[in-house]
Amino acid sequence: MILTIHPLLGIPEVHLHDHLPRLLLDALVRTGVTLLVGDVLVVTHKVVSKAEGAVRILEGDDEQAYRALVLEEAAEVIRRRGDLVIAKTRHGFICANAGVDRSNAAPGTAVLLPRDPDASAHGIRMAIRAETGVDVPVIISDTFGRPWRRGLTDVAIGISGMAAILDLKGTSDAAGRELHVTEVAVADEIAAAADLVMGKATSTPAALVRGVEYPKGEGRAVDLVRPAEEDLFR
Amino acid sequence: MILTIHPLLGIPEVHLHDHLPRLLLDALVRTGVTLLVGDVLVVTHKVVSKAEGAVRILEGDDEQAYRALVLEEAAEVIRRRGDLVIAKTRHGFICANAGVDRSNAAPGTAVLLPRDPDASAHGIRMAIRAETGVDVPVIISDTFGRPWRRGLTDVAIGISGMAAILDLKGTSDAAGRELHVTEVAVADEIAAAADLVMGKATSTPAALVRGVEYPKGEGRAVDLVRPAEEDLFR
Repeated sequence: MILTIHPLLGIPEVHLHDHLPRLLLDALVRTGVTLLVGDVLVVTHKVVSKAEGAVRILEGDDEQAYRALVLEEAAEVIRRRGDLVIAKTRHGFICANAGVDRSNAAPGTAVLLPRDPDASAHGIRMAIRAETGVDVPVIISDTFGRPWRRGLTDVAIGISGMAAILDLKGTSDAAGRELHVTEVAVADEIAAAADLVMGKATSTPAALVRGVEYPKGEGRAVDLVRPAEEDLFR
Repeated sequence: MILTIHPLLGIPEVHLHDHLPRLLLDALVRTGVTLLVGDVLVVTHKVVSKAEGAVRILEGDDEQAYRALVLEEAAEVIRRRGDLVIAKTRHGFICANAGVDRSNAAPGTAVLLPRDPDASAHGIRMAIRAETGVDVPVIISDTFGRPWRRGLTDVAIGISGMAAILDLKGTSDAAGRELHVTEVAVADEIAAAADLVMGKATSTPAALVRGVEYPKGEGRAVDLVRPAEEDLFR
């Protein structure tokens, strides 16, 4: 099956209490795409956070206030080197600066992660279903670094309407041998794929992915978090 | 720009000395896709390794021979727990089992990583250019785990014809603020996106990605490897 990814065009700067599903539906119309069963909607967390008010004003010295906010948002600091803080968030994600970000934020402010990104995804999904009658999975994405690889990639931090992981346990390869790779992080791969049409500097905070065979179920982004007892690198 | 990803259909089981570019070109014809400037070709390393003979016979007890081969391929063992070995390969990649894999391998054999995946990518690119006149970047992909996130995603382990990373340093966000996220691992995101149409159990070891704004330049996969001195988690 051919996979296509449509950037959703013309979404305006999002503010507190904006009705994000409405903005997404308007953008779908503008983009000329009609939602179909099987589509997956990817939304970067930043617009979700802004609509939900997960934004803080940096009082006094920006840099100092930002550093303090990062530590406030961190449930646990994992590593620290100079200004770089790798932290576990309250959701369980391990990422730089506990997910607090000043890019694409109004001057003097920082954007936090949504309080409950799975719930945010669910809310968007339900509102879109109510409006269109089409039930599409929704992924909330963010941009994370990787310990051993340079550069950042988008991952899923909120999920509704699909499983996070495709479990191939018990399936066989073309030669009949049981597969060694048993768990594919499909939600993360979809988030990464969607990022390819979004761009970091542009105002394209959402994309529609069509033709992807996503794992069925009701996943949560925390399914993608490796439990501490399995973690060899903390 | 709309991004599309075409799985390349009907590629047969690959053997030593098979002419992989020929198989890919045949598959493009079969898939009904004509190569265009701007396309990116993603090929999973397994077929590259098989064509290049980066395959070992497991003598005696399969399991024992496999374990020995993993240690032989490892330039450095990073972590070990039970049967799980996280190792640095000679290329510098940090991954499970030093990239040695028995799935989608003939019984009694294991597939290694290509000796020089960038060179492999370059060879495929040049052969395709010679045949079609179209110069498309080629990415060789493999499936890696992540320390803190469950599930695996595909990443780039060989690159020719594009830069690995999009460097946004000095560019600004929509509000004019310099971007905090400065390096996007576009080659890894393309590899992950391509994996969405490949499937682990099927014989679809290649995909054509169309409409992606990839960073120009002559990248190498090692550009994606974080230097040891920057690594906080080794």
